[in-house]
Amino acid sequence: MRPISILFAALVTVAAFCVTETQGAEKGPSAAPLSEETRACIECHNSLNPGLVQDWLASRHAKTTGEEALKKPEAERRVSAKEIPGALRTVAVGCYECHGLNQGVHKDNFLHAGYRINVVVSPKDCGTCHTTEADQYGEGKKANALANLDENRVFRALVDAVGSVKHLKGKRLVSGKPSASTLNETCYGCHGSKITVKGFVTRATDAGDMQFPDLANWPNQGVGRNNPDGSSGSCTSCHPRHRFAISVARQPYTCGQCHIDPDVPAWNVYKESKHGNIFFSSSRAYNLDNVPWAAGRDFVAPTCASCHNSLVSNPDGSIVAERSHNFGARPWVRIFGLIYSHPQPKSGKTYLIKNSNGLQLPVTFTGKPASTFLIDRDEQAKRQNQMEKICQSCHSGAFIKGHFTDFDVSVREADEMVKTTTLLLSRAWNMKLADSANPFDEPIEQMWLRQWLFYANAVRFGAAMMGHGQATFREGWWDLTANLAELSERTKVGE
Amino acid sequence: MRPISILFAALVTVAAFCVTETQGAEKGPSAAPLSEETRACIECHNSLNPGLVQDWLASRHAKTTGEEALKKPEAERRVSAKEIPGALRTVAVGCYECHGLNQGVHKDNFLHAGYRINVVVSPKDCGTCHTTEADQYGEGKKANALANLDENRVFRALVDAVGSVKHLKGKRLVSGKPSASTLNETCYGCHGSKITVKGFVTRATDAGDMQFPDLANWPNQGVGRNNPDGSSGSCTSCHPRHRFAISVARQPYTCGQCHIDPDVPAWNVYKESKHGNIFFSSSRAYNLDNVPWAAGRDFVAPTCASCHNSLVSNPDGSIVAERSHNFGARPWVRIFGLIYSHPQPKSGKTYLIKNSNGLQLPVTFTGKPASTFLIDRDEQAKRQNQMEKICQSCHSGAFIKGHFTDFDVSVREADEMVKTTTLLLSRAWNMKLADSANPFDEPIEQMWLRQWLFYANAVRFGAAMMGHGQATFREGWWDLTANLAELSERTKVGE
Amino acid sequence: MRPISILFAALVTVAAFCVTETQGAEKGPSAAPLSEETRACIECHNSLNPGLVQDWLASRHAKTTGEEALKKPEAERRVSAKEIPGALRTVAVGCYECHGLNQGVHKDNFLHAGYRINVVVSPKDCGTCHTTEADQYGEGKKANALANLDENRVFRALVDAVGSVKHLKGKRLVSGKPSASTLNETCYGCHGSKITVKGFVTRATDAGDMQFPDLANWPNQGVGRNNPDGSSGSCTSCHPRHRFAISVARQPYTCGQCHIDPDVPAWNVYKESKHGNIFFSSSRAYNLDNVPWAAGRDFVAPTCASCHNSLVSNPDGSIVAERSHNFGARPWVRIFGLIYSHPQPKSGKTYLIKNSNGLQLPVTFTGKPASTFLIDRDEQAKRQNQMEKICQSCHSGAFIKGHFTDFDVSVREADEMVKTTTLLLSRAWNMKLADSANPFDEPIEQMWLRQWLFYANAVRFGAAMMGHGQATFREGWWDLTANLAELSERTKVGE
Repeated sequence: MRPISILFAALVTVAAFCVTETQGAEKGPSAAPLSEETRACIECHNSLNPGLVQDWLASRHAKTTGEEALKKPEAERRVSAKEIPGALRTVAVGCYECHGLNQGVHKDNFLHAGYRINVVVSPKDCGTCHTTEADQYGEGKKANALANLDENRVFRALVDAVGSVKHLKGKRLVSGKPSASTLNETCYGCHGSKITVKGFVTRATDAGDMQFPDLANWPNQGVGRNNPDGSSGSCTSCHPRHRFAISVARQPYTCGQCHIDPDVPAWNVYKESKHGNIFFSSSRAYNLDNVPWAAGRDFVAPTCASCHNSLVSNPDGSIVAERSHNFGARPWVRIFGLIYSHPQPKSGKTYLIKNSNGLQLPVTFTGKPASTFLIDRDEQAKRQNQMEKICQSCHSGAFIKGHFTDFDVSVREADEMVKTTTLLLSRAWNMKLADSANPFDEPIEQMWLRQWLFYANAVRFGAAMMGHGQATFREGWWDLTANLAELSERTKVGE
Repeated sequence: MRPISILFAALVTVAAFCVTETQGAEKGPSAAPLSEETRACIECHNSLNPGLVQDWLASRHAKTTGEEALKKPEAERRVSAKEIPGALRTVAVGCYECHGLNQGVHKDNFLHAGYRINVVVSPKDCGTCHTTEADQYGEGKKANALANLDENRVFRALVDAVGSVKHLKGKRLVSGKPSASTLNETCYGCHGSKITVKGFVTRATDAGDMQFPDLANWPNQGVGRNNPDGSSGSCTSCHPRHRFAISVARQPYTCGQCHIDPDVPAWNVYKESKHGNIFFSSSRAYNLDNVPWAAGRDFVAPTCASCHNSLVSNPDGSIVAERSHNFGARPWVRIFGLIYSHPQPKSGKTYLIKNSNGLQLPVTFTGKPASTFLIDRDEQAKRQNQMEKICQSCHSGAFIKGHFTDFDVSVREADEMVKTTTLLLSRAWNMKLADSANPFDEPIEQMWLRQWLFYANAVRFGAAMMGHGQATFREGWWDLTANLAELSERTKVGE
Repeated sequence: MRPISILFAALVTVAAFCVTETQGAEKGPSAAPLSEETRACIECHNSLNPGLVQDWLASRHAKTTGEEALKKPEAERRVSAKEIPGALRTVAVGCYECHGLNQGVHKDNFLHAGYRINVVVSPKDCGTCHTTEADQYGEGKKANALANLDENRVFRALVDAVGSVKHLKGKRLVSGKPSASTLNETCYGCHGSKITVKGFVTRATDAGDMQFPDLANWPNQGVGRNNPDGSSGSCTSCHPRHRFAISVARQPYTCGQCHIDPDVPAWNVYKESKHGNIFFSSSRAYNLDNVPWAAGRDFVAPTCASCHNSLVSNPDGSIVAERSHNFGARPWVRIFGLIYSHPQPKSGKTYLIKNSNGLQLPVTFTGKPASTFLIDRDEQAKRQNQMEKICQSCHSGAFIKGHFTDFDVSVREADEMVKTTTLLLSRAWNMKLADSANPFDEPIEQMWLRQWLFYANAVRFGAAMMGHGQATFREGWWDLTANLAELSERTKVGE
């Protein structure tokens, strides 16, 4: 084993190389001292997992101490904790500074080469320095995305219908429950898995046999991941791997991992919108690192983050919108219709909603909203007003008003199309053309699902961001119309 | 209110910042004087809509006077007017220079803070300096895209069938007409809306209550937009917002907003073509600003614009293809089949076409072209010859000939597949399996539409640019084949 | 005609311009002498096809001699021949150096302006210097991609069913064979065409009438192209045009030309994976030219090439994975299921496989593998172990093990879904609902094909690279489920 001092000298060289060579690296103070523990981590892992270590070396974390982070003017600050605990104040935010936090509650903590290490770093850990962000995130739908699926009887029926293996039993299709692996690779890939510690295993490594925690449902980076420290969420979903670059989180590719057609075609719509057109044509000249993020100076057309969560300012520094990591806090209407559009829910725990038909859905099948659980008109108006301020950075009042009028009508009409389809489904159930026991496992029911989850969403998201192709022929009005015509023919059988 | 002189000093600083910081900004003379009117606009709008003003500051317009623009050697000139009217000659092309033009014909003109302003800048306005471009554009299908939809009985029936809300009346689906908002968010999003002035409204602004024109169907950036000055078209479709960057118009993301699958899969085909492969892998080294645009020097693989409208030269300056803003002027065959491919129409006003069955379609349902309205073989040959010259910049004669042979066959065979499908539809109508009153509102008819509008187009566009996936399994031959098999089974019912 | 010396001086200027101006150009020695033959080529072609010549001027080939290429340290070497033949040793790798090789076997060789030229440069030609790469490529499925389609009775039936024009004969659809052009624009676009010399033709050129070989099925850049020199393959598929840039081959856009949904959704899955997210957000800072390619230093998230074929090292130069141009050499399981997943075939000539039912498929319809033709468990384990080493550059052991467990389960379950579907198809054939003569030409059969070729592939590829949307609602589990439900209903008819 080489002495640590030599290794460290080598690393400094590497770090210097990174700073000059890696154009994409976050700019920051040129160096920060590494803790003894982190130096020990790097000693082995720099040769075991060099890509991982290099990624971190290019991060702002590798070059900043807690003290320096706190010294910044408030608007430029990337930490929100009022104070940063002792150990983190004076060293770079290295391996051990994150993987060694809150050991007492981490069931995935284990003794590793003399140090107690957590495998999974959670929002609770990140919240040590990024407190407000962790808190906001925890209140939103993202941190609760797993429970919102699993604890909701309707959605759970959908998950089971879709992800289960089907076999033939005589002439009938039969199915059980989806496997943990398939859930992890499908629904829970975005919603998050429940990571538990099954025990400990010994694995052969380049440094000999070592013991590690044996984690169920790992790896997973879904936004609502249940972590072994009891917390929910995953910061790495949007701030991936060990660089944690704000420039990655701000680019639409990140949101596009999950918010993609056919169910959530936000990414598709953005791509074909004028915002997307300008972003893809000009983003190499954007400044994707600046905090605050100034419209017109740092970016031209907005990305998802500009409108939905970033701290946005004018070039003169005046704040246009405060940062929020509760992604449900800015929108006023939820266009991801379940099954109709509705005011945003008050709480991120949507599985707690109960509508007047007893279902955990924000609206009944006939369109009655579960208003107690949803924000009221005043809150809606306040939020729309705030969003319009962001639009105003680049658009006139007439432009903005006109846009949101079209949007409102589109959302309402998509809802009406879903209503008509739901009435046909109801007729089909009455005619015994399908069995309502599971509303997702027969062809007529699946046509109904496509109608609200795919096609009405295409119309609503298309109208939200002016993605006209998606709203028209690509899973929008055309499919709403054709699918309804086909469903109508099928429910005429026997008349 | 701060004195204008102070504001202007501040602006110059801002402008200087932009020039050095914004890598994507168009290069040009470092400064041009602003008119008094434009300075007044900026005084307020720089704080009201800073993104908009910053965008303009990074434009060539902000740094050039008409006089300077005219001084350039002809091939490098970006203005085509022989002369530029007095006011525009000596100042930067600022807010008022565009929003204050041709006030007499602008129904959207209004008194605003002491100045008479038009809300909507039209091709007629841009044509003050960019005369040839505005003229060419006006002659093409783009400027006429709204009329080509609305004044054509067949297409109007499609628009109504697709965009209307459907309700249940007893056991039947009934529908009315699509709403203005839905049209704006779907068909008219690309084709353009008809903007009218409904009256005037008072709106609260940061500067107190102000009166504004109340515009119907605004905002809209469709290529065939009908403007309040009586003109048709929208330059901002491709030269978006206030930077008007030629580098944006030249990148395929711009065309990709509308020319997208399933109906016009040009963008999809480009993406998977070798041209696209090279563009996405190498375009960061392209010079997207140069005029003329030299193959091999400024770009490697072409973008849409290279082949379809840009002024393309060799590196030695010799001209390969003249610029044209009539996008129908270069192609010889129209592969966006309605319902079959056909020679390009002579006029951009395709709603004036009448075929021998009395329909406003360039070909009858049995395949007879409305030849009087279409270019002849000589013109076709001339155009193909011109296009081949562009290909020749990078490809040999054998390559080019071979490619267009395959293309011709593919287009013809896609037409034959549509013919077979149309015969089946005809049979279905005869068998009363569907009612021909509206040819787009029943499942069998919708299968027929998919055949020509989606699948045959995938084959034709795929063959035009070597997008093999689109031509095969992604809405191409596979879907043509499977959809036809299904239609055939359905029309056998009752035999 | 200008004297060659003047032209050459001009060219050197152009080359110098390219080197400084074209950021994307490959870095290398600043100049290498051109052969007399190549200078003659350029004399005409620089004005005839300037884009082509400029592209070459920006290539490494234009700036390196064989001798210089051989001098590099082994790990950095881009040529693998032990020796390079005389003529190529001392001049730049110019037009004639490639288009003049192996003339004796090139049926496309012709006398052109005093020189004997081959039209089509083949892997055999490239193998003069890149011997190992040509050999490896020749052993894989890519070089055999045309025969693998054409010589396999099952796949040939699919090709014929899909690509043939269908006509109505009375009430029946009839079809013949696909045309050569359509094959070239569809299946053979990726798989490669058979280029033959039909004779010679005279064409008018800018330099007067000239004779050229008349090639059938040209142009084509499919990976299994049959070349006029008797070799199979096409290097230009991934190293396109005359720049041959390794930076293009390493970017996923290149693989994405063919490995695209719905049949091979690798590209779609990559785009929505975390690897893709990071690549698209950060690749402008990647070093895409370095050999060897160091994880963490040259790239962060991997591209297709990193895991599937590149020579990957650690930043300290130690080799993580050797380069391989046999793209089937690294994976252990073939998830492009035909119709089920199976161990990778031993030979790239998959048409030689014969399963126990006599079909040229690696697995029978009931799931029995043709094990003699497939790699065994030991080889599978060895390969998986090698791949995990690549993963380990950035990921921990627990992460990797967990991922491949989920992957294995997903692949197995997708296979089970295909099995259920195949049993239903079998029932349909027994019930005479379809005729098994061609298993691809009737609706029920086409539903079966979609199940394994589109939807099971979406699940398998999605699980391989964590593309959760593709595995769930975009042609994955949802479509597997809904298509099966519909097929089940259809095969209940008459019960």
